[in-house]
Formats: sequence, C-alpha cells, structure tokens
Amino acid sequence: MKKSLVALALMGAFGGAYAQSSVVIYGTLDAGVQKTTNTANTATQITKRDNNKLGFRGVEDLGSGLKALFQLEIRYEPDTGVIESTTRPLFQGQSRVGLQGAFGTVRLGRGLTAYQESTIAFEPWSGLPNVAGYQTNLQVAGYTSDPLSAAGNSGNRFSNAIWWNSPVWNGFQLNVNVASKEANGSPAIIGRGTAAAPQYGANAMASANPYSISATYTNGPFAAMLATERNAIETKLWSMAASYKPTTALKLMATYTKQDLEHTVAVNNEVDAWVLGANYTVGPGKFLFGYGQKSPDGQLKTKQISVGYEYSLSARTYLYVDLASKKTPLTATATSDVNQKHYALGIHHNF
Amino acid sequence: MKKSLVALALMGAFGGAYAQSSVVIYGTLDAGVQKTTNTANTATQITKRDNNKLGFRGVEDLGSGLKALFQLEIRYEPDTGVIESTTRPLFQGQSRVGLQGAFGTVRLGRGLTAYQESTIAFEPWSGLPNVAGYQTNLQVAGYTSDPLSAAGNSGNRFSNAIWWNSPVWNGFQLNVNVASKEANGSPAIIGRGTAAAPQYGANAMASANPYSISATYTNGPFAAMLATERNAIETKLWSMAASYKPTTALKLMATYTKQDLEHTVAVNNEVDAWVLGANYTVGPGKFLFGYGQKSPDGQLKTKQISVGYEYSLSARTYLYVDLASKKTPLTATATSDVNQKHYALGIHHNF
Amino acid sequence: MKKSLVALALMGAFGGAYAQSSVVIYGTLDAGVQKTTNTANTATQITKRDNNKLGFRGVEDLGSGLKALFQLEIRYEPDTGVIESTTRPLFQGQSRVGLQGAFGTVRLGRGLTAYQESTIAFEPWSGLPNVAGYQTNLQVAGYTSDPLSAAGNSGNRFSNAIWWNSPVWNGFQLNVNVASKEANGSPAIIGRGTAAAPQYGANAMASANPYSISATYTNGPFAAMLATERNAIETKLWSMAASYKPTTALKLMATYTKQDLEHTVAVNNEVDAWVLGANYTVGPGKFLFGYGQKSPDGQLKTKQISVGYEYSLSARTYLYVDLASKKTPLTATATSDVNQKHYALGIHHNF
Repeated sequence: MKKSLVALALMGAFGGAYAQSSVVIYGTLDAGVQKTTNTANTATQITKRDNNKLGFRGVEDLGSGLKALFQLEIRYEPDTGVIESTTRPLFQGQSRVGLQGAFGTVRLGRGLTAYQESTIAFEPWSGLPNVAGYQTNLQVAGYTSDPLSAAGNSGNRFSNAIWWNSPVWNGFQLNVNVASKEANGSPAIIGRGTAAAPQYGANAMASANPYSISATYTNGPFAAMLATERNAIETKLWSMAASYKPTTALKLMATYTKQDLEHTVAVNNEVDAWVLGANYTVGPGKFLFGYGQKSPDGQLKTKQISVGYEYSLSARTYLYVDLASKKTPLTATATSDVNQKHYALGIHHNF
Repeated sequence: MKKSLVALALMGAFGGAYAQSSVVIYGTLDAGVQKTTNTANTATQITKRDNNKLGFRGVEDLGSGLKALFQLEIRYEPDTGVIESTTRPLFQGQSRVGLQGAFGTVRLGRGLTAYQESTIAFEPWSGLPNVAGYQTNLQVAGYTSDPLSAAGNSGNRFSNAIWWNSPVWNGFQLNVNVASKEANGSPAIIGRGTAAAPQYGANAMASANPYSISATYTNGPFAAMLATERNAIETKLWSMAASYKPTTALKLMATYTKQDLEHTVAVNNEVDAWVLGANYTVGPGKFLFGYGQKSPDGQLKTKQISVGYEYSLSARTYLYVDLASKKTPLTATATSDVNQKHYALGIHHNF
Repeated sequence: MKKSLVALALMGAFGGAYAQSSVVIYGTLDAGVQKTTNTANTATQITKRDNNKLGFRGVEDLGSGLKALFQLEIRYEPDTGVIESTTRPLFQGQSRVGLQGAFGTVRLGRGLTAYQESTIAFEPWSGLPNVAGYQTNLQVAGYTSDPLSAAGNSGNRFSNAIWWNSPVWNGFQLNVNVASKEANGSPAIIGRGTAAAPQYGANAMASANPYSISATYTNGPFAAMLATERNAIETKLWSMAASYKPTTALKLMATYTKQDLEHTVAVNNEVDAWVLGANYTVGPGKFLFGYGQKSPDGQLKTKQISVGYEYSLSARTYLYVDLASKKTPLTATATSDVNQKHYALGIHHNF
C-alpha cells in the first residue's frame, strides 16, 4: 500500500524504504587563553589550540566483508561560535562517502590529502594546528595542498577528489589521492606571469590533476612514512618521517620535507624543513617537545622550539599548557627576524 | 526547588522541564564522476547525482491520535563540503513543524510545495535533480516555485508557508499549501515592465499569495496525480500524471505539465512538457528509462532520452550509472539546438 | 598495534582512543502567523515567537564529583530555513566548554551573559524574544551586551569570554562572566567622537574588559536577582528583580533596570525601565500578563501591555496566542509616539 506523502517526507526519502542507520555524532571543543608576541594580534585572547569539530559519521555493513562509510565534519571557532572562516565550507573538516573491503578503502569528496593525513603521526603536537605545534608550517615546509581555493581556505585538503587506502600488509599501507581539475573560486596567482597576465587567473582550473601519495610502515615500536604530493599549481612536495618508541612512555619523531615551487617561482624556489619531536607520558600527564627549522632558498630561516604539557582528566578530556619560541622573518624579503613567544592554557574535550 | 542557572542552560530550555525526545538523524551522501558535453563546464567532475542531505526529525506522540512533528534538513555539496549555494538557507531541504491527527497533517515553515512533492512519484529518476533525470526541467515544464527568492535559490519550495495534507481516503489524498506574500531578497524581475520600472522590483513582495494544490490517488498497481500551483509572480502551472505497475518489477510513468507565464510575459507565454518513464527491477539491479519533451511557445523544443542503472549493495546503498542525451537550445532565442551527452558513475548512500 | 589511517580518520580523532560519549540533540521549532501594526513590515507573516534552536550538548563524568560539559547551539529562522542572520555565527545560541565540580561551573567560549541569563526568570514571557515579550527591550532598559560585534548580531551575548557559576549556597548563587577585549568586526561607533574620528573605529577592540555579574537568591516561593554588567564600549547596567508565587499556579514578577551610557553619550545618557508580570496556570493552559515602561532621558517613554496564552499539548509542545499594545516613539528624536498592535498565533515544539 502506498504511504502518504507526509509519511514518506518524514522518512526523509522518496522511492524506497531503508533500514535506520546508527549515525555517530562526535566532535571536539577546545578553548583556552593564549598570547603570542610580535604578531599582528598580541592581545591576550580566548581562542583554541586544536581544531573544533562537530561531526557525523557512520558505517554500514553490506555483508561479505564490504562496508559503506560516510563522514561529515563541521569546523568552528569555540570563542565566537562562527564556522572557521566565511570562505570555508560548512563541512570544512571533510565530506566523504565510500566503500571498504578486501581492496582497502575508496572514498570520494573532500578531506585531508593522503600526505597531510599521514604526516600527523610524526608531529609532536599530533597535528594540532596551533602556534606551539609544527603541522601547518614547518612540518610541511610551508607547503599548501589547496592553492586554488578561495582566500582563507584550508591548506591541507583536496576537494573534488578520490582516495584509496590500501589494506595494511605486514605493517605497510599505501594511500593514494587524486583530485579533478575543477575550479574552486580562487583569486588570481601571478606566479611566473604578470599582474596583467597572471599565471593562474581568478577562479582558474588546476593545470594538472593534484595528487597525493603516502606509504606508511609500522613494525612494533618503529613507524615510518614516505610521501609525495603535487597541488593544483604544480608545486611539488616530498617528505620522509620516522618515529620510534624506546619505551611505551616515550615516542621520538623526526620529519624531513622539501617543497619545490619551480612551476610558479623562477629563482629561489625550494624550501626544506625538518622537525624533531618527542612525547613522554607520566601517569595522567604527557609532555610534548619539538624543535624544527624551515629554510626557504634566499630567505631567512624560521626556527621554532616548543614544549607542552597535557593533563588528562579522562580519556576524552585534558587540560593543557604550551610554551613556544619562534625566530622568524615577518616577510619573505625581511633581513632580520623577530622572536615570537607563545603561551597557551586551556581545556580540550572530545565528545 | 529551583534548579541552578547552569543546570537549566544545559537543558537547553528555560521556563519548564520536558521529556527527552528521540531525534532521528538521517541523510544522503551521493558522489561520483560525471561529464556533460556542450555545457558551460564540460570537464570531468567529482560531483553528485542526488541532493545531499543531513537532517534531523522527530515525532512526539501527544495521545488521542495526535502527534507533533518537526523536520530540519541541511543540503550540501559532497565534493567540496559547502552548503548548496551561498544564497540558499542552511536548512534548504526543509524546516517545518506541525501537528498530525484525524484531520491530516498541518505544518508551517519551508519545504517542497505540495505539487513538487507529489510529482516526484511519477518521475523515472524518483525526482533526483540530476542531468539524466527530468525533475527540475521537463517534469515541471521549466516552472519555478520560488521566483522571488535570492538568485541561486531553490526553485521547488515555498518559504513562509503552511501545508495541509489530508488523511488518505480510499487511496485519495489532497495536499494544499499556501505561502504568505513576504519579500525574500530577490533581484528585480522586468516581466511586463522595463529595466527602469520592472514589474517586480528588487526584494519585492508577492503580488498574490502563492499556493500549491495536488490530489493523488492510489489503487493497487495504479496511481495518479492532478495538481495546480501559482507562484509569487503569478505564473501558473497545471499537471497530471499517472503510473501503473503491470508486474511488481515494472513501473510505467507518464506526466503532462503546462506552465502559463501570462502574468509576466506578453506573447509566447505557455510552455508544455511531457515525460514518459519506466523503472524495471531485476534482482539487486534497477533500470531507469525516460523520454520527454518541453515545448515553449515560439522557441525550439528540448528533447531528452535517458537510461540509468542502480545496483543495490543494501537497502541503503547503491552504485549507479547514467547515460543521457539532450537536444536543447542554449538560449531562449537560439535558432539551433545542441546535443548534450551526459555520463555519470557513482555511489549513493542513505544513513 | 598501529591502527590504519582510515580507522583513525573514521574515529574522528588522531593521537588517542577515547570512550564514546552520549551527545544529546535538542532544539525548538516555533512557527506561527503574526502581524504588527505601525512597523516597517505590517504584513501578515509566517514567523516565530521564540528562538529556534538545534543544539548538541553532553556531560562527561570525570569522577570525584568533577564533570566536563560542552554545548553548541545553532539558531535559525523556521519560516525560511536560514540561520538567524548572515552576520550571526552558526552557533549563535552558544558554544562553550567547561568543568563542573565543588567549585561550581567554569566555562569558556560564547553564550548569554551572566546577567542576561539570570534576568530571564523574571520576565513574564520567560525571555522569549518576541514583540509581546519584554526581554530584548524593556526588561534590559534597551541595553545591548555586545555593541562591538558585526551589525545585526545578537545583543545579549559575550564572545571570547569566561563564565563562573558558583554552587548554590542556601538558595544563593553568584554568576560572574568576563570577556577579552578582542575585536569582532563591528562598524564604527561615533559615540563622543565625530564621523571622521569616531570614539570606536571599525573593528575596534573593547576599551575595557566587558563583564557581567548576577547574584540570585531563591527561598521557597520567593526569588530575587541583583545584577550589573559593563559592555565593550563601557555602557553600564544595573538591574534588580524579584518573583513570588503566592500559590503554585501563580507567579508574580517585577524588574527594575538602569542603563548608563555616559561613556559614549554626553547628555541624556541614562535609561531606566521597569516591567511587571504574572503567569497563571489553569490545567493545561498558562496565561501571561505583562506591563512595562522604558524612560530614556530626554526622549518619549515606551509603554507596553501584553497578554498571552499557552495551551500545552504535552510537556514539550504548546499552542500560543499573544496580544500586545505598545506606545513608542519611532526614533530617538520623535515628538510623538505610535501605537503598535501585535497579534500572534502558533505552535511551539521542543525536541
């Protein structure tokens, strides 16, 4: 018998009944007090240390070892309640759907690139995008994964992309990620052109398909990564990283990354960077240490040292303190650097 | 005893305790690879075939056969994570609240018009708003339900409206929907005016209350619809449709629709269109066929033939392929048409 | 053993496993038909009487009487599906995280100020921000908590703030709330300056830390509040309020509030206002009464009388009717007032 229109509408679907799924709501709310000297905004601020997330995900068992999976993740600022930026998508974190089986996992949509997702495990702040951590600058040698998106957008994701993560074979996993060339509302990029004839015009399409590949290996206390990526304006990146746990309480990390800007920059078009890190767990506490350098050809180096402490109130909630000192030029042509001191104190809650 | 402010705030409500409800989260994530020739964007794209939804709904039993119901539905693009358009509402899908009882269902808010909701059952792609399907163009004879919203808005919804769906009497149901005349931020519409004195100025109010009425009838394998609608600029629409299932595996569909633009267009102000369709189920597979024509007075016809295949991995997840060929003029005054070929391949997941 | 990247990504967190939380989804959908005479929009509208909410909250038990708590609250317009204003945050309602224990509750983020949250209990429409109610104008003597936010923003919240709510001691509770001086995208405020040199330029920082303090006391049928607040442009507010329940069915309320604009206004820089109210419950029905006056120095008074009726269909759902009459000048310099009549009828549903 035909269901009434209203009954169908309330089911949220036309054209077929379907089993109720179990959507998991998850997220992070991280807020604290911070201050950074020698920056555009040196005031004491209420702000975040981690990304703030509100996400929805689910896995459907299709039988025979096959699963369908989806994930949608909102990102927002906890201190003002806004989404991360007016030019960022509602589901800035990710929006992906795919299948998982003996062949690994295939997903379509938007998310962290294969490389950006893999490098997090080798960064002493676990990839948290804050001033004390290294993820968004030194860990990636200043590279951006998405230069042809609107200004203010995220720099470590692909939109319009497909992902393949292999199964884990004896500790080894391959992650491959390719994006279409679709335009995404970027401003013009002069590059090797001129202001009148920029190398990439406003709302340009990629000149080649962006891709990202990482290979990871884990063997007991040892883990390593090799990765390469090319973005929409053909900037290339290579990275290698390793970690070792001499005891269960201590994790040592090292990363080396090289960015090649030759496609858009005529001279001084390489940047390399390295980061050393350690995490040390003592009871409910965890100490974080990091030191790193970024060396762009023909520019002053950036050097950063950081120390952090996380005190767990539970598996989901911790308090944190960060201290960092960064010597960095304020512009690419600066002939002297400044010393930015950073202080942070706050609470991190996963739900 | 008075609860503390915090306790009240955490309950999310002041001024009264209330029972916890059971909110259902539901949605659709549909992504694939597509290409359409002879359009503004002929590149191979990662994009969607269906609307992508994240919704929240609930039903509260009030006793005596009475129920309160609500539904909120976000729409987004899976390939980039953005909401459907910057000029579309967060809850583009719908935001409605109402009561259901012996009198039927009464709802207030925003949602598909009664006609647009009813016609979906007679469209071979189940109303999916993609290139291979017919819903947004031929099925509705090019009509738009909401011409006085901001540019880029949805064309098949009323905002500021009230809905009544009757109970089902011997297979017969009446659906009535009326909107207020409220302005909603539209650009000017010249219509029978001039650029200097447009018939509807920017942010104009409706010149008459928009309404939408559909009557549906179902009797075993047979279903039919009669509908009429008038939008905010007094464009009128009439439609009739029928479907028949000679076997449980086969569904045949036909729709005829006429749009009358007399209120805003002096000559050649009628458009008619018809669509024939079939769905045929074989095991986990479903074939979709469609053919249709749209004939605007004094313009070239649009003719479209489509074939699709959906392979179900479960009741909630399927893979799909679409092929379509459309002969259409690119502008209203074109003297020749182009042939747009469309190819799509992807995954559709309901949660 | 190391989890695969995909498994980690699907968990929504890197760097640590955590127990699944129980997120509560809650909200309000309120829609009805309204009309107000002598205003910019006198048409009959489909609109709301209460804030419309979709929220996510949770409490984690940390042991030893300590709890972590978070809350995120979307606000939207039910009639069109949009968020409350394009200049308001996605989580306009609130975004806060904190800890609760023997010390009370400490939270960081964005939310109602301590004063604005406390005064709601003494307003006859329970703080509902509609025309018949008093919350957004007479109850607060025309004061705004957030003058340095973008135009169109909420007037009763602090962003970038910290809250402390004390435990309840013999019915007494203290609520303290301080915000940082961070700029938040406001237009310039001339104040005691000139158009060329406004007292607060565009995107100005606060000239002093905004704070809000309320003390509440409850003893059986009696409750009272004393509060003071200073906003980002150093406007000050004092308020006292009391309520008494001679029977369980009847609640009487009175509020007196004074706003001091001396920091930005040279002469006639005080506003005072008082509101009297009553709620009377009869079976499933509740009558609301209110009368109030606002007296800005050197301007005409605003006087408002309102009556409302709420008929509960359940603990979560009610129907309502409001009638209000307001005598008010249309501008600060008006020499005569107009009489605005307001009529509302609708449904309120909590989920």
